[in-house]
Amino acid sequence: MTGRIYNFSSGPAVLPEPVLRRAQAAIWDLDGTGIGVLEHSHRGPAFTAVLDRAEALVREVGGVPASHAVLFLPGGASTQFFQVPMNFLGGGTADYCCTGVWSQKAIAEARRFGAVHVACSSEVTDFDHIPPPSEHRWSAAPAYVHVTSNNTIYGTQWTREPEVPPGVPLVCDASSDLFSRPIAIDRYDLVYAGAQKNLGPAGVTLVIARKDFLERGARDLPTMLSYRTHVAERSMYNTPSTFGIYVIGEVMAWILEQGGLTAMAARNQAKARVLYDFLDDSRLFHGTARADSRSLMNVTFRCRDTSLEPAVIAQATARGLDGLKGHRSVGGMRASIYNAFPPAGVDALVDFLREFERAHA
Amino acid sequence: MTGRIYNFSSGPAVLPEPVLRRAQAAIWDLDGTGIGVLEHSHRGPAFTAVLDRAEALVREVGGVPASHAVLFLPGGASTQFFQVPMNFLGGGTADYCCTGVWSQKAIAEARRFGAVHVACSSEVTDFDHIPPPSEHRWSAAPAYVHVTSNNTIYGTQWTREPEVPPGVPLVCDASSDLFSRPIAIDRYDLVYAGAQKNLGPAGVTLVIARKDFLERGARDLPTMLSYRTHVAERSMYNTPSTFGIYVIGEVMAWILEQGGLTAMAARNQAKARVLYDFLDDSRLFHGTARADSRSLMNVTFRCRDTSLEPAVIAQATARGLDGLKGHRSVGGMRASIYNAFPPAGVDALVDFLREFERAHA
Repeated sequence: MTGRIYNFSSGPAVLPEPVLRRAQAAIWDLDGTGIGVLEHSHRGPAFTAVLDRAEALVREVGGVPASHAVLFLPGGASTQFFQVPMNFLGGGTADYCCTGVWSQKAIAEARRFGAVHVACSSEVTDFDHIPPPSEHRWSAAPAYVHVTSNNTIYGTQWTREPEVPPGVPLVCDASSDLFSRPIAIDRYDLVYAGAQKNLGPAGVTLVIARKDFLERGARDLPTMLSYRTHVAERSMYNTPSTFGIYVIGEVMAWILEQGGLTAMAARNQAKARVLYDFLDDSRLFHGTARADSRSLMNVTFRCRDTSLEPAVIAQATARGLDGLKGHRSVGGMRASIYNAFPPAGVDALVDFLREFERAHA
Repeated sequence: MTGRIYNFSSGPAVLPEPVLRRAQAAIWDLDGTGIGVLEHSHRGPAFTAVLDRAEALVREVGGVPASHAVLFLPGGASTQFFQVPMNFLGGGTADYCCTGVWSQKAIAEARRFGAVHVACSSEVTDFDHIPPPSEHRWSAAPAYVHVTSNNTIYGTQWTREPEVPPGVPLVCDASSDLFSRPIAIDRYDLVYAGAQKNLGPAGVTLVIARKDFLERGARDLPTMLSYRTHVAERSMYNTPSTFGIYVIGEVMAWILEQGGLTAMAARNQAKARVLYDFLDDSRLFHGTARADSRSLMNVTFRCRDTSLEPAVIAQATARGLDGLKGHRSVGGMRASIYNAFPPAGVDALVDFLREFERAHA
């Protein structure tokens, strides 16, 4: 008995159990140093090894070339929402693909630093899909294009990068699906992800970006807000979230043990298919995202009779299926099934939903 | 055998062992919820209880009244260096007391947002003391006064708050001594501290500030950089460092178990006295800070024959007295002996230094 239950939280979210076991040990004593991982100087050899390892493993997992920097920054994706335009918009126009609340928040912050052209939007259909390439309308000379690769609230996900005009930098908020599948990292000039879905604990943000793009950032910014600072200092200008970096390294090692991103994608597709197949066959439940835009990370669904939903959530919770309540802005149910979520938990959820359906047929 | 050694690191630094034990358990399963502390939704009831507890215990430990907000922010003190003037300087003049490199960094960031008047400085004597009140020269109408209460690199510490002109807000970087002694919190309009010395792990910054002062912050800032955002959302506008907040709560509980800040101060004074008394009597070693300005947190010292210092550090490390190397900008030795540093470790250091002195007399 592990004492642990199935955690469908949208983030912070379930982490691999072997990583948790290693973190428990490291908190008391990191690698036999006699000092715990929380307590090591960030400038000392033990943590330097942790940082080196985390960066190397991020590069190995993501196939990140030397042209790109790997940074571990504070402040979450919400800080990237303004840090990107503060560095790269400079009174110009940036094109944003609007696929949900997180896109909208990124847009609102960008407008403080220049003009935003909404290149596509699914707002009129309540963000139930990713606009297809035929609907993308780029502005004349965007400073960059910004896209939110996975939309936790609506359960939608881009299946591939948008085709941006040649020479236009592509920036991506991949907070909720980075490293859940292979990524063509050289297609991106800057990708950012709060760690707390697929990568590690909350409080550290992974940024992978072309060094020559970062070099073009605005001058005379507060030191902490210039990406150049963090490239030059390898994320160690000030004391970073040392524990967050440690856990990311362990999660990367776990991903590699599982077979890397190809294996992650296969595993995630299989998990999601079990749930979507059930929903497609159900007479009581139905998925909310359009079939061509379904997220493999967050499966959002409702009862046709929405008055049943509180009972679904309560009964699921009572059985150890936790965190299924949909985002407060949309209601319904949401099963977040990131990398570390076990396939057996999806099976258990489907068993429960099937049982609930029989009882309410 | 705990397998742990004496860790004199200046930060991240040693944490109380009972806190580490509780954190190890919570990483697997927080309070019997079946979900670890890293994995709980920051909006769920389990983490809400963690946040409530951490805030309540910070208030209890520090005697923080309802007039002041307690915030857990990202980005470290280095982010506060610019966030304070970005919010409160607005083209005016702020007075900074310059007592070391961290003051200088705060000053450099403030100059981006207005004028800085250096109200006092110990730079000409290599920051070996805290300028006495007779040397404080305030400008005509400062937006605020900023002080660095403890200077890790030089081993100096303010013994009391500066006497600022009536009505002038006092802002304090207390990163390395907050909650190491009682604090007259109502004397401060804003105190900030990176957690990684006396409070918890790196990656979360405790900010305690008057709500009416925060209300006066600049408008139209990026959402994450306005203190008002974090007051309104109780540090939960975005996903905070949930683990950092958890550990801070546990450290606060530990401080209360030890008897609170009065007991902490007595314990810290006793630890520092053992070391300073030895240094004052030594013919081989000497402290670097002026006696009236000595820090109880970071005891900086040198050999009269500085060529012996590498041997001191190497032999100490070999005996399990780790992290004694002084900051690279000043050299020498530094024993950081924050709240959680055990008195027995100071005794062990003095024993070693005495032995080293005998061997080199």
